[in-house]
Amino acid sequence: MGEVKNTQIVLKDYVKGFPKESDMILNASATTNLKLPQGSTAVLVKNLYLSCDPYMRLRMTETGGGFQPLTPGSPIEGYVVAKVIDSGHPNFKKGDLVWGMARWEEYSVVDAPETLFKIQHTDVPLSYYTGILGMAGMTAYVGFYEICAPKKGESVFVSAAAGAVGQLVGQFAKLSGCYVVGSAGTKEKVDLLKNKYGYDEAFNYREEQDLNAALKRYFPDGIDIYFENVGGKMLEAVLSNMRLNGRIAACGMISQYNLEQGEGVCNLFLFVAKRLRMQGFIVGDHYHLYPKYTEMVIPLIKQGKICYTEDVTEGLENAPAALIGLFSGKNVGKQVVVVARE
Amino acid sequence: MGEVKNTQIVLKDYVKGFPKESDMILNASATTNLKLPQGSTAVLVKNLYLSCDPYMRLRMTETGGGFQPLTPGSPIEGYVVAKVIDSGHPNFKKGDLVWGMARWEEYSVVDAPETLFKIQHTDVPLSYYTGILGMAGMTAYVGFYEICAPKKGESVFVSAAAGAVGQLVGQFAKLSGCYVVGSAGTKEKVDLLKNKYGYDEAFNYREEQDLNAALKRYFPDGIDIYFENVGGKMLEAVLSNMRLNGRIAACGMISQYNLEQGEGVCNLFLFVAKRLRMQGFIVGDHYHLYPKYTEMVIPLIKQGKICYTEDVTEGLENAPAALIGLFSGKNVGKQVVVVARE
Repeated sequence: MGEVKNTQIVLKDYVKGFPKESDMILNASATTNLKLPQGSTAVLVKNLYLSCDPYMRLRMTETGGGFQPLTPGSPIEGYVVAKVIDSGHPNFKKGDLVWGMARWEEYSVVDAPETLFKIQHTDVPLSYYTGILGMAGMTAYVGFYEICAPKKGESVFVSAAAGAVGQLVGQFAKLSGCYVVGSAGTKEKVDLLKNKYGYDEAFNYREEQDLNAALKRYFPDGIDIYFENVGGKMLEAVLSNMRLNGRIAACGMISQYNLEQGEGVCNLFLFVAKRLRMQGFIVGDHYHLYPKYTEMVIPLIKQGKICYTEDVTEGLENAPAALIGLFSGKNVGKQVVVVARE
Repeated sequence: MGEVKNTQIVLKDYVKGFPKESDMILNASATTNLKLPQGSTAVLVKNLYLSCDPYMRLRMTETGGGFQPLTPGSPIEGYVVAKVIDSGHPNFKKGDLVWGMARWEEYSVVDAPETLFKIQHTDVPLSYYTGILGMAGMTAYVGFYEICAPKKGESVFVSAAAGAVGQLVGQFAKLSGCYVVGSAGTKEKVDLLKNKYGYDEAFNYREEQDLNAALKRYFPDGIDIYFENVGGKMLEAVLSNMRLNGRIAACGMISQYNLEQGEGVCNLFLFVAKRLRMQGFIVGDHYHLYPKYTEMVIPLIKQGKICYTEDVTEGLENAPAALIGLFSGKNVGKQVVVVARE
């Protein structure tokens, strides 16, 4: 016990445009004490897996884009899977496995441990708690079931469909008896959509001259539900293809995060003409549903009825590159960084 | 009885850009029989008041913009208040007063009389059934109460606030204990908003260099509810000023109806960041609520707790100019055309 080194990934400054590795700095000289001070109500954790998520880009701006902005000079914050090393909080004890918000470093002091989820099921891969059993899984669940209220036989479109969230939305849609089509940015991802996640159809948006025409091809009768991860011109094309009373869960708009000025969407009148509903959501507002979600999804995982693809990067020092890769679509599936395996 | 003249206003051709009087033709040579043929299940009505409504512009296009397109060469269709002259339908008899969809002509045969509403209360101005007691009133009611689900103390913004619908939304908002601000396009309308309809504040959007700044002035803590009648850059400015969990009822987007290409809205990402919900609606889907609405609103009218401004144009021949005036904001309040008074 006592003082140990605690390598960190620090945000250099607020980021403009496309994020670069040099926007983050590896600080190898930080240290931490492995014992909490007497009377602390915090929890000290050892970080095992880091979750790379598109919304983190927003926190790298001065306004935070709806989230708490990160602090330049301080470690990046993000979701992690971690092991409790010391606890001043009655709900946690040494050795507990948890997931929740901490920092990109080897050890983190979590001052609000009530935000952490205790990991109950360890007969699934532990890294799943950065994805299917963590924030991404809950995002797919809330956006699809709660916001979109799918009915059997409806037509569903998912953008960024091979990502951490999209791969699950497609599988949930099939379990709900829907017709589902996904878009992604490489042939490899399109193949995964069709052959692994059970998407009825999939296309590579980079190969389409005309997104509107592509959607018409796959949805001659229109789209009932759009799970929105992309925004901009994709949203505009989708609106043109929505059916009456269509629903849009606005989960994210990754195409817009690195732009100074967002792309204009010119056909919003269709909201009136088609009686559309679009609802933005942030998963943090819905975590009370987490027990209900795990009750549903853990049996599906164990029975092999649902699968999950992770893109695993080894080493905290490689976390900046992994995060940045999200914005060029480099990752195939959920982007995870392994800091330590136990 | 027998054959009489039946002057009509006919749509010349589909309309592009800003509508002109010459897009409609007065046909003074049409005639009608004042007796329905034996065995008809239709209703023959004498039209008293015509309702001029922005959505009618959409029906003048080939696609209809979400509505049934009008037929060039045939009379304009629209909401009317009318008196039954002859009826082949068991629910209607000669002398009944009705409101609903007919045509811009002196007499109309309504082939689907089940779409007509029988007027039960005649101790209010009959023309109100083109407005507060007709489609416009129901639109305000459904959009505000059903779609926006207002809570006491919330902040409400209404665009086109002095129009047929907007003047009611503001009054409903005050009855619900909300803070409400409206925008309109003339000083006269702004005065009406503040001094007649009880809006807390109002502004002339034509005098604002920066809509975003104008909204910030009236909503330093943001907008909970936006009743959207305008679209385009107004919607963009509103999105920038919405509060977390804000709701938008997309009732219409009059600024966009005469454009070949809609204005781009560049900040839709705020749907995610602020967990916004926008829902388009068309009042026709909600007419089952009409009895509930009249039960609420008729006592309010009689008690003087709600008022309604009409802009009355005399004569069927002046209907085209009245309709076109909507798009330059010429009308003050609900635009009605008197064809006959009884």
